[in-house]
Amino acid sequence: MTYKVSHALEILEQTPKTLQSLLSNLSEDWVYCNEGGETWSAFDVVGHLIHCENTDWIPRLNIILSDAEHKTFEPFDRFAQFENSKGKTLKYLLEEFQQLRAKNLEYLKSLQLSDNELSLKGNHPELGEVSVKELLATWVTHDLGHIAQISRVMAKQYKSEVGPWVKYISILNK
Amino acid sequence: MTYKVSHALEILEQTPKTLQSLLSNLSEDWVYCNEGGETWSAFDVVGHLIHCENTDWIPRLNIILSDAEHKTFEPFDRFAQFENSKGKTLKYLLEEFQQLRAKNLEYLKSLQLSDNELSLKGNHPELGEVSVKELLATWVTHDLGHIAQISRVMAKQYKSEVGPWVKYISILNK
Repeated sequence: MTYKVSHALEILEQTPKTLQSLLSNLSEDWVYCNEGGETWSAFDVVGHLIHCENTDWIPRLNIILSDAEHKTFEPFDRFAQFENSKGKTLKYLLEEFQQLRAKNLEYLKSLQLSDNELSLKGNHPELGEVSVKELLATWVTHDLGHIAQISRVMAKQYKSEVGPWVKYISILNK
Repeated sequence: MTYKVSHALEILEQTPKTLQSLLSNLSEDWVYCNEGGETWSAFDVVGHLIHCENTDWIPRLNIILSDAEHKTFEPFDRFAQFENSKGKTLKYLLEEFQQLRAKNLEYLKSLQLSDNELSLKGNHPELGEVSVKELLATWVTHDLGHIAQISRVMAKQYKSEVGPWVKYISILNK
């Protein structure tokens, strides 16, 4: 599928609602469980998505669209949520995410990016040259990847409870 | 996490709402796309979940709880949705799934299964002996697995659009 802002918006707009549906009525056992070690819980993932809204997608888009001489992105902090989410409830984080996302999509829509603007380039500190289109398409896949991750983290809590079905439920073996 | 009906219900109850949030406002490009070949689209997955509500979880539970001499499950038809979903809209399927799930969870709650009942056994045509607890825990992981699958199927549509980010978005490489 070729990237189109209008198509991408369909996914980006549903994510806060999907996370609310998936997580709002769960007890803490589901919300704070992870895949062991340093892996992330649903709570951690929502905090990470908030940090992306604040520092990744739109700020990086603005760097590319700016008149700056060197359009190099700030490195992204993958661990910011551990400090930022401290003392907050999941309910609070879900609302914070919803508000930031709504504001960012309003802004994206207001830009009415042309095909020419979608092909403008910036510099990712590790990946090198990337385009607006690639940045915005990544935003979509990143949302969906984290919805899948949260589903997997929760499913795995029952890995030892499903008996012989473990070999049929492929998410338990990822 | 040890299986508990009350905990499991938290996940099973959210699934229809999560699918509605994830899929209700998407254009057909997202709803009918798949991962190539014989793989399933979001539309196919929702049809499959409906078939499970009708023929898998509760019917198999009832076989185990029955007085039948041979408690062997009917083989599950993994392709039933291709016929059953024909001519239906995704909106119709999502509502059908929501109603079936609500009815099945009402029934499950009404049983108030004891620990003893959770350990009763039936025979899976391929896996052999399985318990009520294993069947019901599988129901939960099956829901979450298919939410993750739908997310992956849609994310992959942009695999060639994200440029060098493809190596950071692990869902694109599964």
